[in-house]
Amino acid sequence: MSEKKVVKVGVIGAGRIGKIHAESLATRVPGAVVEAIADVNLAAAQELAQKLHIPRVYSDYKEIMIDPAIEAVAICSSTNTHADLMIEAAQAGKHIFCEKPVDHSLAKIDKAIEAVNKAGVKCQIGFNRRFDSNFRRLRELVKEGKIGDLQILRITSRDPAPPPAEYVKTSGGMFLDMTIHDFDMARYLSGSEVKEVYAVGGVMVDSALGEAGDIDTAVITLKFANGAIGTIDNSRKAAYGYDQRAEVFGSGGMAATANNTPNNSVFSDAEGVHSEKPLYFFLERYMDSFVAEVRDFISAVREDTVTPVTVEDGRVPVVIAMAAKKSMEENRPVKLSEIQ
Amino acid sequence: MSEKKVVKVGVIGAGRIGKIHAESLATRVPGAVVEAIADVNLAAAQELAQKLHIPRVYSDYKEIMIDPAIEAVAICSSTNTHADLMIEAAQAGKHIFCEKPVDHSLAKIDKAIEAVNKAGVKCQIGFNRRFDSNFRRLRELVKEGKIGDLQILRITSRDPAPPPAEYVKTSGGMFLDMTIHDFDMARYLSGSEVKEVYAVGGVMVDSALGEAGDIDTAVITLKFANGAIGTIDNSRKAAYGYDQRAEVFGSGGMAATANNTPNNSVFSDAEGVHSEKPLYFFLERYMDSFVAEVRDFISAVREDTVTPVTVEDGRVPVVIAMAAKKSMEENRPVKLSEIQ
Amino acid sequence: MSEKKVVKVGVIGAGRIGKIHAESLATRVPGAVVEAIADVNLAAAQELAQKLHIPRVYSDYKEIMIDPAIEAVAICSSTNTHADLMIEAAQAGKHIFCEKPVDHSLAKIDKAIEAVNKAGVKCQIGFNRRFDSNFRRLRELVKEGKIGDLQILRITSRDPAPPPAEYVKTSGGMFLDMTIHDFDMARYLSGSEVKEVYAVGGVMVDSALGEAGDIDTAVITLKFANGAIGTIDNSRKAAYGYDQRAEVFGSGGMAATANNTPNNSVFSDAEGVHSEKPLYFFLERYMDSFVAEVRDFISAVREDTVTPVTVEDGRVPVVIAMAAKKSMEENRPVKLSEIQ
Amino acid sequence: MSEKKVVKVGVIGAGRIGKIHAESLATRVPGAVVEAIADVNLAAAQELAQKLHIPRVYSDYKEIMIDPAIEAVAICSSTNTHADLMIEAAQAGKHIFCEKPVDHSLAKIDKAIEAVNKAGVKCQIGFNRRFDSNFRRLRELVKEGKIGDLQILRITSRDPAPPPAEYVKTSGGMFLDMTIHDFDMARYLSGSEVKEVYAVGGVMVDSALGEAGDIDTAVITLKFANGAIGTIDNSRKAAYGYDQRAEVFGSGGMAATANNTPNNSVFSDAEGVHSEKPLYFFLERYMDSFVAEVRDFISAVREDTVTPVTVEDGRVPVVIAMAAKKSMEENRPVKLSEIQ
Repeated sequence: MSEKKVVKVGVIGAGRIGKIHAESLATRVPGAVVEAIADVNLAAAQELAQKLHIPRVYSDYKEIMIDPAIEAVAICSSTNTHADLMIEAAQAGKHIFCEKPVDHSLAKIDKAIEAVNKAGVKCQIGFNRRFDSNFRRLRELVKEGKIGDLQILRITSRDPAPPPAEYVKTSGGMFLDMTIHDFDMARYLSGSEVKEVYAVGGVMVDSALGEAGDIDTAVITLKFANGAIGTIDNSRKAAYGYDQRAEVFGSGGMAATANNTPNNSVFSDAEGVHSEKPLYFFLERYMDSFVAEVRDFISAVREDTVTPVTVEDGRVPVVIAMAAKKSMEENRPVKLSEIQ
Repeated sequence: MSEKKVVKVGVIGAGRIGKIHAESLATRVPGAVVEAIADVNLAAAQELAQKLHIPRVYSDYKEIMIDPAIEAVAICSSTNTHADLMIEAAQAGKHIFCEKPVDHSLAKIDKAIEAVNKAGVKCQIGFNRRFDSNFRRLRELVKEGKIGDLQILRITSRDPAPPPAEYVKTSGGMFLDMTIHDFDMARYLSGSEVKEVYAVGGVMVDSALGEAGDIDTAVITLKFANGAIGTIDNSRKAAYGYDQRAEVFGSGGMAATANNTPNNSVFSDAEGVHSEKPLYFFLERYMDSFVAEVRDFISAVREDTVTPVTVEDGRVPVVIAMAAKKSMEENRPVKLSEIQ
Repeated sequence: MSEKKVVKVGVIGAGRIGKIHAESLATRVPGAVVEAIADVNLAAAQELAQKLHIPRVYSDYKEIMIDPAIEAVAICSSTNTHADLMIEAAQAGKHIFCEKPVDHSLAKIDKAIEAVNKAGVKCQIGFNRRFDSNFRRLRELVKEGKIGDLQILRITSRDPAPPPAEYVKTSGGMFLDMTIHDFDMARYLSGSEVKEVYAVGGVMVDSALGEAGDIDTAVITLKFANGAIGTIDNSRKAAYGYDQRAEVFGSGGMAATANNTPNNSVFSDAEGVHSEKPLYFFLERYMDSFVAEVRDFISAVREDTVTPVTVEDGRVPVVIAMAAKKSMEENRPVKLSEIQ
Repeated sequence: MSEKKVVKVGVIGAGRIGKIHAESLATRVPGAVVEAIADVNLAAAQELAQKLHIPRVYSDYKEIMIDPAIEAVAICSSTNTHADLMIEAAQAGKHIFCEKPVDHSLAKIDKAIEAVNKAGVKCQIGFNRRFDSNFRRLRELVKEGKIGDLQILRITSRDPAPPPAEYVKTSGGMFLDMTIHDFDMARYLSGSEVKEVYAVGGVMVDSALGEAGDIDTAVITLKFANGAIGTIDNSRKAAYGYDQRAEVFGSGGMAATANNTPNNSVFSDAEGVHSEKPLYFFLERYMDSFVAEVRDFISAVREDTVTPVTVEDGRVPVVIAMAAKKSMEENRPVKLSEIQ
């Protein structure tokens, strides 16, 4: 790859996830250079630029859009800006890496898709868990046929602590905010499309979330186009930390993942046998996957191949989340075709 | 307990499970003596009697019913005889251990319950998995409050191989034949009652089962009276053997069980790291629980306490199974109150 | 095997281990019948006889020796009687199952061996751990060549609690009393003979053991005839219970065993991830192996094959233990040829 | 720490380990800047400088030694240059991070120690495994008293593949080249000094190593000053990859580590239950520890504290290795005092 061109990237947003992507692009992704960073909080952008030797720093992201030297943008700003920035980047002919979710409105998502397709730029949505080594291994086993015909898919996804009630008011609800990752994982692991959803949910963790109109616990059943059945369970609070597991079962066998821990020591004493809790913080748990996803994005740009998570892949989980919400509200299975 | 009386038991049925219970009662259960065994296949009964030093052998179970020296019967005959034998034993004033299921007809079950209650005899139904050390530990953790408020319950129950299509025609279907154990386990682990069921099923393992009117794969969602949500997944065939796991999750933490294996060796070579498959055969997997359940039955008789699995406990899983079947057929959640 | 003769066994000793072997022979070993039991404590023998339907009960073991109907004896009396009883049984033409150790004196062991060989009776020494499913699996992997050429062998053997100081005064010391099992295991797993021993030991658990002239902690290095190197570590007290593990490493790979636990539940809470401690009591830990060893003994008698643990196998670990003691005392490696 | 000064580092050597330390210092260590890099292979140094934005590049390391702006050096050149470069750096008043081993000659090591002490500069030796999260956790448990009085220490350290015979001729032999890490680990985990060593070794993996005068398999017993006993087992080739484990056992309990794997998936099929092999390559297995050790070195410089692995810590394992070699050659336990 050494003869391939270097991709100059502009990073939009110097917040938590912007920092991570900028650092990955600057130091761990072969063939990428961070040419510019923009944030309305100019000081944050400057600090990051200095640390990472980024030559240009802006408070206005539009400077990045008009810079002809910049080939690709990483959109790491707040969710409500994603779709508009994608459209603007597409129109400027820039390849796009955009954090998930694209938007909570299917209409806005569709406009973004249209712009991307029209411009013919590459676009990747930040469903980073697909790049986690555990889940990736499960996908490989399914893909290689080791699992045989997939029959049952199980995902356990539990947060270490609930978000503030204030946050959930604008989050779109747990299915759009949290389960959306699991809906994407279900599509990724199965290699099939969800056709129908049945969701049961409740407020068991924090009554404030219920008062804010959301739930915090759910079990969701998925029917896939290939006949497989999926089940997802979610909680906003696992006492033991961040619980992220999956299992695929089919005619050939079963594969499952466990949680990642800070170390694998086991301590035995008179009280019992003790091992470490799962990694608590999602940035720590999924750090390698954040690096891997932008590496693959840059590789897709350099090799001119399809990105591993397309803009359409960004739309479908939103539809599933909407179906799940409708299912829970009406206490009946809901077909995805009812949503579109 | 050495001063307590010995309980003389008559075993009805010398087939597979009859042999197991007779041997347990004869050799591993303190305070029990097998006084008689009856089977229409007299030779089978005689062979067992000789091996276990059982003094009396009959081809007609009625000899047991009229023997005043016999205080308790173990009903190990075919399912369609259970309810009638329970009624007969109750009328004869004998304590009853009866294999599951009581019957496929709620009307017949109710008659058996009525007879048992009227006679005031003790009655225990053979839901042996409650006596398995793994699941028992989960129940204890729930009971002791270590799990906190139970929120999510997960059961995985997969057979190593499907039954013959011929068998399923009279089995009552997978929910009544196989999942019934999991419905009982759900009640046992949660300590709560199921209120509503949603079941998705399919024929993925063996089309002959489908032609016989049954399914072989299912995912079932349960709503409990205490607010918890349960999910069960079933398959008639796991390539790697008999898969029997459960998980309880609540505000205080989570507890899960793994499969039992013939040994715990781990072999590492150039191909990978390999450990043993689960125990394949249910009799081997659950042998200890078969011993424990009759031990507890005899103990309940000797100590005059409530049996750990009452005749009512034998009824409820049948109702849940019926609700599950209805749910699958109508593709909607079904309340248990619709069945009663 | 149904056509094969039944082996009538006389059990000598109705103490802890006598009870276990009598019960196994009476109820779990095909082809065996316990014809008589003898114990100077007649009441103990009678209680066991009643429970197990053993027809004859004696206070004097000689009644068993002269009974022509009895083909085999199980010697479960105190260690200092083993060699004499073996000689007496051999002279009476009876097959012998004898608890370990044969004796602490090589001279007495050699006399017993001579008597057994002269009489041509079968003799099995009670090194039960060879029949444990975990260690057996390791042996199979070595034997089948899966491990390749054996290079390193590791045994960890730690008791849950030290014996009373009073006991160790007559026990022959830790190497003869406790490590002897590990020396046997080393021979069994490797399929090779120990040539040289280096032992380091100390008093770290209980100073009373040191005052009684014994040690309670040791690490022992073994050189095998086939070139492999072994290491054993022992402690009289593991805070977490009975620790019994082994590992075999060779050119083809490595196999290791873990401890057995009362159940395999894993409980995760805010403090950590907790699983069960090893089974504490050796009778519970090794119960299956006690049944298996007498089953194989009876099978060897019925099939006229070599017993799986010969009387010579009872001698060698005593020699290794003596070499280990000498090594520790002189702080140098000691060849087994120095002992013989 | 943001107010603390930045430490300007010169890296000597742009080979495999030099690249790793340069990259860590440049991108992952707060408060460090790589000011210069030197390598006789100038092209290698230039390539690294460009990637990491290192301002100055030299073919002669002396340019770094005379640069007053550079406060610290990372010595990543070949082993035979370590001691001389340490002396030169100390005389230039620069803090020193030096790869292990310091040297194979105690005389040269002592000169380096003298120079470091005289100059009063900080010096850290690259025993990176101390910074691995698994082993670190064991050390913490010992230090916190959770293990109680340490009694037995076990280290398993097996390479995935033997080095070329050519290499071992100048490596100083397996004890100095490979086991030296385990000797350091033994001191680190125990917090005590080794007093006596007994080593057994052989050529079991590759006869070419034997012809070159080295061994490839060993079991070593250590006596510690605090009374504990240690055992190390080594092989130059584990068929399943890089095997790196340790166990500490004491009056309070036991703690053990397992190998790290590329992912934690478990795949069950008709053949068995399969998980991943250990990470094969030491750079991958220990990458996090390489970052952590230089982070702690920089922190020691900035905070003016003692480095976590002193130059004396670099000397002791060499002495233990020499004692081990003597022990194996003379087949007797060797006291460390015989070496000094």
